[in-house]
Amino acid sequence: MVNRQYLEMLGHKSVIRELSEYATARAKEIGAENIYDFSLGNPSVPAPEAFKEALIRITKETDPLQLHGYSPTVGNPVVKKRIADSLNRRFQMDYGPQHIFPVSGATGAIAHAVRAVSEPGEEVIVFAPFFPEYIPYINGTGAQIRIIPASFEDFQIRFDLLEEAISEKTAAVLVNSPNNPSGVVCSEKTLERLAALLRKKSAELGRNIFLISDEPYREIVFDHKTVPYPASFYEHTLTCYSFSKALSIPGERFGYVAVNPQAEHAEDLVAMFGQISRGIGHNCPSSLIQLAVSETLEETADLSVYETNMNLLYDCFKELGFEVIRPDGTFYIMPKALPEADGLSDSIAFCRKALQHDLVFVPADGFGAPGYFRVAYCVETQVVERAIPVLRRFVEEEYKGV
Amino acid sequence: MVNRQYLEMLGHKSVIRELSEYATARAKEIGAENIYDFSLGNPSVPAPEAFKEALIRITKETDPLQLHGYSPTVGNPVVKKRIADSLNRRFQMDYGPQHIFPVSGATGAIAHAVRAVSEPGEEVIVFAPFFPEYIPYINGTGAQIRIIPASFEDFQIRFDLLEEAISEKTAAVLVNSPNNPSGVVCSEKTLERLAALLRKKSAELGRNIFLISDEPYREIVFDHKTVPYPASFYEHTLTCYSFSKALSIPGERFGYVAVNPQAEHAEDLVAMFGQISRGIGHNCPSSLIQLAVSETLEETADLSVYETNMNLLYDCFKELGFEVIRPDGTFYIMPKALPEADGLSDSIAFCRKALQHDLVFVPADGFGAPGYFRVAYCVETQVVERAIPVLRRFVEEEYKGV
Repeated sequence: MVNRQYLEMLGHKSVIRELSEYATARAKEIGAENIYDFSLGNPSVPAPEAFKEALIRITKETDPLQLHGYSPTVGNPVVKKRIADSLNRRFQMDYGPQHIFPVSGATGAIAHAVRAVSEPGEEVIVFAPFFPEYIPYINGTGAQIRIIPASFEDFQIRFDLLEEAISEKTAAVLVNSPNNPSGVVCSEKTLERLAALLRKKSAELGRNIFLISDEPYREIVFDHKTVPYPASFYEHTLTCYSFSKALSIPGERFGYVAVNPQAEHAEDLVAMFGQISRGIGHNCPSSLIQLAVSETLEETADLSVYETNMNLLYDCFKELGFEVIRPDGTFYIMPKALPEADGLSDSIAFCRKALQHDLVFVPADGFGAPGYFRVAYCVETQVVERAIPVLRRFVEEEYKGV
Repeated sequence: MVNRQYLEMLGHKSVIRELSEYATARAKEIGAENIYDFSLGNPSVPAPEAFKEALIRITKETDPLQLHGYSPTVGNPVVKKRIADSLNRRFQMDYGPQHIFPVSGATGAIAHAVRAVSEPGEEVIVFAPFFPEYIPYINGTGAQIRIIPASFEDFQIRFDLLEEAISEKTAAVLVNSPNNPSGVVCSEKTLERLAALLRKKSAELGRNIFLISDEPYREIVFDHKTVPYPASFYEHTLTCYSFSKALSIPGERFGYVAVNPQAEHAEDLVAMFGQISRGIGHNCPSSLIQLAVSETLEETADLSVYETNMNLLYDCFKELGFEVIRPDGTFYIMPKALPEADGLSDSIAFCRKALQHDLVFVPADGFGAPGYFRVAYCVETQVVERAIPVLRRFVEEEYKGV
């Protein structure tokens, strides 16, 4: 007999996937150039040439037994050292190779991080708006997700609600900066206040609350800003990273967890991740991919297209009267749906009408932002440029005079 | 605060790893050529040239956005079809791409298979001798491992004990053929009897018991034998495979679960694996590795060295008076330790004394075969040839006249 819970999950399809499938089908009908698909967060620029060269050079030059052989359970020490050195240089940290655990992307990183710092039934606090996959990621570990409603003025943290929510059941708090879906970065002020609150609450509870920082979009940031590095604000931080977005290699499944050297049990946590791997089926990344990425750690794909697209869309949404916060990074923007005849925003009605104009947006209700919608602009700039007049016409026809 | 269970696991080091670490340290002392390390199951022959060529060709010729982009959650359809076609051709099965789920090696395959067909607390029955990592692999899913003692005459299944063990708590039975550590293959007769018993018990219980077949050593088989394919004997079979051993690419982490098209919920199981992935951190293999392997499905590394080594060692162990079954495949052999002065076999005492002669064997007590030891002969043949006189001298000095 099959497992009932997983069987029942099959009924609940992801809205994003459904919309994306609709868009793909519609593209076949009317031509891909006539559908404006802003549904999926799939990088639209190729991996850097240096990555390709590293793959070929390593494959050609390395003894295959060494190249394709087992790496140690907790990762290839050469790769771990390169990652630690790069983080130390960039963020003034003090990681050693023993603090770095290679995994297959940010999902694998979160699967290990949450299990390592929670007991079944404890809570992991997440701030809206949030990536809806956090729900299965976190609940699948045996811990429970607890969601703090969004601060819609700035998409920073609502500290009043966070303070109320922290209890004896709180194992960890998860931040995602730059944020999917809003594109907003956690400010230094926010991170300082968060660290202070976590220290105060940890002292009150007599146990350390961990901070899990999910930052796959760390390298995609606009206006030459730098993203404050959460682990440098709070000692008990596990940094979850994926090379999927910055290097445009999501199919290669490679990321890591970095344990702050000042964290509780910092010298044990990577070994604990190794133990966790045994039960969840070892999320070790490919050894070839690990090596190739470790030689291109300071490279990124050409990410400038995302900033170009963001500026075009932000200006257009503002001009059309949308309530919208300018993203600091990522390849997402999350405006509020224009009000319906009753004066209220209804993102589902809005996205449905947009779909009639072949504009594919995703309602952000499932991201904890009811009334808002997410626009994923990881597309060629000419798609954005062609979409803008369509968006204008759609707003005029459907929301004129509302 | 960190998770207590995983923290406590750190105290329990694997005996295999400890011995292997001892051997590595000793090799540094006395020279690698003077230590005979038969502890680790790490392939000793390089991946086939065709695999290297495929990696380079695919990297050079494929659009990087397509090559390194996300594959669908349940796997690349081209790769799935190639795997299904190859299995159908070789084992007269009827798999479609929808029955194949690519994962990161056999561990990932087992993590998905067990979760999909069990409820927490249910049992998965395993036959001794068995790979000891099954304990964390299975118990880590929430199911419980239940071990059936070995049939030491032939290392087939003790059906009397199996029949007694099957109960309402039985979710699945796991077979591993060719077997780590004995090298023995499940015979057709055994598989026929197993299928008949599972059908009978399933009917009595009113629910189907699944068969999980873990077969990473399927291609390493001696005397031109063929390994009976368990899924062709029993309809509710999930076949767990890894390319690690046959292609000598354990570091690349690629395998699959194949769902028998006649199994209960055959059309849902792969989608269920996709749901399971979300909670355990998505064990999807690298897209480049998937494609390269899918072009070399009919290739293997040059596996003949394992048969050469097996013959040398088997003949030597027989000649020295060991009780030992001739392996049908794998790169393991599992003799019984020679009796101590009290007439009883003590594999730990035996392996400790062997270590004094720089022979590294692993006690098989943890594999469910007390008194036996495992010899992993995935080494160059000259290592076996040089080890044989050392083995003779060791037996003569330590067990002469016993």
